[in-house]
Amino acid sequence: MNPITILGLCAAFCTSVSFLPQAIKTIQTKDTSGISLYMYSLFVFGTLLWFLYGIFSSNIPIYIANGFTLIFSLIILGYKLKYK
Amino acid sequence: MNPITILGLCAAFCTSVSFLPQAIKTIQTKDTSGISLYMYSLFVFGTLLWFLYGIFSSNIPIYIANGFTLIFSLIILGYKLKYK
Repeated sequence: MNPITILGLCAAFCTSVSFLPQAIKTIQTKDTSGISLYMYSLFVFGTLLWFLYGIFSSNIPIYIANGFTLIFSLIILGYKLKYK
Repeated sequence: MNPITILGLCAAFCTSVSFLPQAIKTIQTKDTSGISLYMYSLFVFGTLLWFLYGIFSSNIPIYIANGFTLIFSLIILGYKLKYK
């Protein structure tokens, strides 16, 4: 694996995993007042496009990362819609 | 420009722009109680790595997108640190 792919995998790991503590915090506190509905609506859609881009361009870090990010951000969006 | 690059640019546009309404909301309301500090700390670092990955792999959608995302997420992180 070349160094650029490793850099991409580290980047993918950080940005994807970062949505996990937000999802956990949102599930535990149900405090979504400071969270933007516009952000998560657009972000979920964009992450789905990134996921497809990763698949069509055979870019492993991108589609793995965005698959996980999509799950976490969908949870946050769901809570935002339920507890807004 | 091939269709996969266009898909990547659309994805980049959505996920990058999505952080703008969050940044605006956070600046206007200063309500950061529902925002995870762990998320934004890790996300800012990960976005920096994505930016470098985009530059080193000459991937235009990735480094343009993450350059903007880095600015917006740094603003949100700054407000979270100031108004936690």
